[in-house]
Amino acid sequence: MSYSQRIDRVRQRLGDVDALLVSDLTNIRWLTGFTGSSGWVVLDATGLTLVTDGRYGDQAARQMRDAGVLGEVLVGRTGAATLAHLVDRTAGRSSVGFEAAHVSFQQHATWAKAFSASLAPTAGVVEGERRIKDDGEIELMARACAIADQALAEVAPRLADGLTEAQVRNLLEIRMRELGATGPSYDTIVATGSVNAALPHHRPTDTPIREGDTVIIDVGALVGGYHSDMTRTFVIGEPSPLQRELYELVLAAQVAGVAAVMPGVTGKEVDGVCRGIIADAGYGEWFTHGTGHGVGLLIHEDPYANATSEATLQVGDVVTVEPGVYREGFGGIRVEDLVVVTSAGCRVLTAFPKDSPCLPSPPTT
Amino acid sequence: MSYSQRIDRVRQRLGDVDALLVSDLTNIRWLTGFTGSSGWVVLDATGLTLVTDGRYGDQAARQMRDAGVLGEVLVGRTGAATLAHLVDRTAGRSSVGFEAAHVSFQQHATWAKAFSASLAPTAGVVEGERRIKDDGEIELMARACAIADQALAEVAPRLADGLTEAQVRNLLEIRMRELGATGPSYDTIVATGSVNAALPHHRPTDTPIREGDTVIIDVGALVGGYHSDMTRTFVIGEPSPLQRELYELVLAAQVAGVAAVMPGVTGKEVDGVCRGIIADAGYGEWFTHGTGHGVGLLIHEDPYANATSEATLQVGDVVTVEPGVYREGFGGIRVEDLVVVTSAGCRVLTAFPKDSPCLPSPPTT
Repeated sequence: MSYSQRIDRVRQRLGDVDALLVSDLTNIRWLTGFTGSSGWVVLDATGLTLVTDGRYGDQAARQMRDAGVLGEVLVGRTGAATLAHLVDRTAGRSSVGFEAAHVSFQQHATWAKAFSASLAPTAGVVEGERRIKDDGEIELMARACAIADQALAEVAPRLADGLTEAQVRNLLEIRMRELGATGPSYDTIVATGSVNAALPHHRPTDTPIREGDTVIIDVGALVGGYHSDMTRTFVIGEPSPLQRELYELVLAAQVAGVAAVMPGVTGKEVDGVCRGIIADAGYGEWFTHGTGHGVGLLIHEDPYANATSEATLQVGDVVTVEPGVYREGFGGIRVEDLVVVTSAGCRVLTAFPKDSPCLPSPPTT
Repeated sequence: MSYSQRIDRVRQRLGDVDALLVSDLTNIRWLTGFTGSSGWVVLDATGLTLVTDGRYGDQAARQMRDAGVLGEVLVGRTGAATLAHLVDRTAGRSSVGFEAAHVSFQQHATWAKAFSASLAPTAGVVEGERRIKDDGEIELMARACAIADQALAEVAPRLADGLTEAQVRNLLEIRMRELGATGPSYDTIVATGSVNAALPHHRPTDTPIREGDTVIIDVGALVGGYHSDMTRTFVIGEPSPLQRELYELVLAAQVAGVAAVMPGVTGKEVDGVCRGIIADAGYGEWFTHGTGHGVGLLIHEDPYANATSEATLQVGDVVTVEPGVYREGFGGIRVEDLVVVTSAGCRVLTAFPKDSPCLPSPPTT
């Protein structure tokens, strides 16, 4: 799908407002190709204007040209100049929609004083289109997944070598770069032992990985702005009976969760499948987070799969399935894949083996 | 300064509100030591409560204990449960302050319906204290600067080896990790040639660095959550007369800007010193951004030094001084140091030499 088609689809969702003022930078990137850290887009039935600051004027013009986006770029060298551009561009409109989830209370108050048009809160106008990934976006995410798969395949056999969490993180992130990633998709998680691995979002420390530990590795790559996301859990040495029991439990929940992903199913239903299996085994209290989230230009985006998510999965949604169990004194186990919803169910984009918590052999290549 | 002292200082700024609801995660980290990606703090005259989700309950309790923060941690496993905790915690108060710049229009609307207390917009209550760095924070930033200095000293002599922008970025980021950084302070900028270097915030590409190019390298390290920030510009081979003239102009402006940094001076005045020198030489239109910004737990924070900044510098502010000139067809030149305001003026934290655009010799160690 071209950028022009994206813009046209959003235009068809404008509803009652005469123009949409887009302030979320991810939405702006998806609409125009512009990747700068400062910008606003005014979109109406006939035109598109991007307002940015002096650092990004040339870049914005070039990126919009490369994206085939017809529109003007205006530069405001001060906050007041930027505001004046936005006010001018919407003068004469009766109603201008703004992104209520992405505009601060303070920003809205400033705008409400300055704009002649009335400001109308909107929710998810761009995101409603952005969450459905086209083939080009899925291809970028598949490449990101393949890079993380490969990096983990090379690094995992070394987990018994006495490395620290931070050293493993460094090896993974360096290797992903060498394999063509722009960078890691997020702060790589390497969490080991009975304390650190009990924290779902632990940050790597100088703690060495030891025999008998569980090690959670949550790693993804960034390619062309798109994220991958995968978690695998390993046990160093022979797993204890409890480690094995809980690994098999989490894996069974994760496999069932992936099997439940299909068009028309809600995020709550996918979460319920995973949560039910873990709760039935008596470990419901150990599963302390939601089952999954959408991934794309952001690492966390719509749709979510958790206990309260009413979002209905659609073909083209890309979501994680990642149940886990955590308990201080035991450690933690999480297994996560990234999947794209298809008419037949879903396609799994992450390919690193998950059938066992034992360390893999080194690649033979 | 201890975390308890930080909390007490913020308490003294509460003014008319009975409690402050802190939603900015950087402010929460600075107040409590908590580093998770989801959390809210309620602070009043007698207590502090942190509300987070199921991923972060144990982590929050441990980080607050380690920080010596007395307070309770409440876990909300759904958005509704989190909101209920916040409503309960503020019940009976007549006025609760919220951070107007960090709360979305939508979030405020939800809160306004749910809270019994009246919600009062506040601005910069925590930031007003957070911008002044204590000795421990300055020490972390000095270490981050030293790591970036060292990485650049090792990599810069290789700029004439035909590497691409992305390869230089990778070398710098890997080396900073090896030297003890948590990661890069921001996406490292390596911008070369007459087109890319003309973009102040260019992202590294596969463009090779060639004889005759200017190369802008903007690189910093992250240590203990604190950022460093430095830019140097090199010319590969013998600089042309224009390259030399503009390098000397930018350097003169930058040196004068650093000399202007002292307590009581405004951001606008520092900017004016740099801008005046560049404008007097006839290149005012080529200097397309502000002169500097505060740095700390964020890479961009108060105080700013630009054409409209009324912020008055105080002892303990850490700010960049980074004038530059950019023009498509020529390329760009920027020189940036990170400095901490002292009673005597300022101390420069970044130490990589800046007197010449020519490549340095390899380190002799």
